[in-house]
Amino acid sequence: MDRVKRKERILKYRGAIVDVYDDIMEIPDGSTAHWDYIEHRNGAAAVLPVLEDGRVVLVRQYRSALDQETLEIPAGAKEEKEEPSMECAAREMEEETGYRPGSLEKLITVCTTGAFCNESIDVYLARNLTKTSQHLDRDEFLNVEFWDLDEACSKIYSMEIKDAKTVSALLAYKNKYCK
Amino acid sequence: MDRVKRKERILKYRGAIVDVYDDIMEIPDGSTAHWDYIEHRNGAAAVLPVLEDGRVVLVRQYRSALDQETLEIPAGAKEEKEEPSMECAAREMEEETGYRPGSLEKLITVCTTGAFCNESIDVYLARNLTKTSQHLDRDEFLNVEFWDLDEACSKIYSMEIKDAKTVSALLAYKNKYCK
Repeated sequence: MDRVKRKERILKYRGAIVDVYDDIMEIPDGSTAHWDYIEHRNGAAAVLPVLEDGRVVLVRQYRSALDQETLEIPAGAKEEKEEPSMECAAREMEEETGYRPGSLEKLITVCTTGAFCNESIDVYLARNLTKTSQHLDRDEFLNVEFWDLDEACSKIYSMEIKDAKTVSALLAYKNKYCK
Repeated sequence: MDRVKRKERILKYRGAIVDVYDDIMEIPDGSTAHWDYIEHRNGAAAVLPVLEDGRVVLVRQYRSALDQETLEIPAGAKEEKEEPSMECAAREMEEETGYRPGSLEKLITVCTTGAFCNESIDVYLARNLTKTSQHLDRDEFLNVEFWDLDEACSKIYSMEIKDAKTVSALLAYKNKYCK
C-alpha cells in the first residue's frame, strides 16, 4: 500500500535503557513529518508462572512512570541484545519471585506501543515450579502475590490490572488452556 | 513496602508526541539510580469495533518504530489531555475505519509499558456500527480488514498480531462475551 517512508533517523538522547530518536518521514504528497522513535536497547522477556494448584504468581511493585503500584507478571530487560528471551524469562522469574521454572512454553509476543517504540516482549508460560529464593536488583523492591486465575482476570475488568503484557498473558493463557 | 523514591525529574528532550525525562531515584540504601521516563503528552484511546455478524474491524498499517506492518484495533492520541477518551475512541474509529459506533462500552484500560512510560489507553467495545467514510491524517495510510473473532485470536498465538492493546482487547472481548 501507499505509505510514509523514513528518510532519516536522528539520535536525540541516550537514556538508561532507551535511546530517543527523531524520525523524519517522507509523505507521498512530498511533505515531511516528524515521528518520535524510542528504541528499547536490549528488548525484554516476561513469564506467567503457574503453580500446581492453578494459582498464578504476580509481582506488586512501584512504577515511577505511572506513579502507582502495579500488579504484573515477572519481566525484565535482556542483559544483552543477544540473550535468548527464554533465558531472560527464566532468570527474571527466579530473581523476582524465588521460583525456578521446570518447563517454559512460548505463549505470545507483544509489542508494547508500536506507534513510537520498538519494544517487543516474548511472553512465556512457566510450569513445574521449584521454590528457590528471590535475588532482587539494588533498585528493585517488589512483593510476590498468588492469585487464582479467575480472580486475576476479574482484576483486568475492574482495571486493577492494567499492565499490557500482564493483561495479554493472563487472557492468552486462560483462552488457550482454561476455557 | 520499602521502595525507591523519585528525587528529581529532569526534562531531556521534547518530541512530537512524547517528552523524555531522566528520573533520579533515591534507593533505600542511600544510593541513587537513573530511570528513563517517557511522557506520552495527551494519552490515547482505542476501540474494538464489532459488526452485527460478529466480525471485528482491524486496521493494517506500517509502523516505522517496528519497521513492519501491523494489524491493530483503531486507536489514536487524544487531541488534548482533557478530551474524554470515549470521544477520542469514537473519532479515531470513524476516521480510520469509516464506521461510526452506535454504542460504546468501556472494556479495559492498558498501560502499555509502565517500566518507563506513562501511556495509558482506555479500550472501548463498539457495536451497532453505521457505515460512513474514512478521514485519514496526511501522514496516515492504512487498510481496513474484517476478521472473524476466532481467526483474529488465532493470529495472536501465531504471533501475526503482537500489538499489546490489540491482543488485550481481542482476548478481553472474547473472554467476556464469546466463551
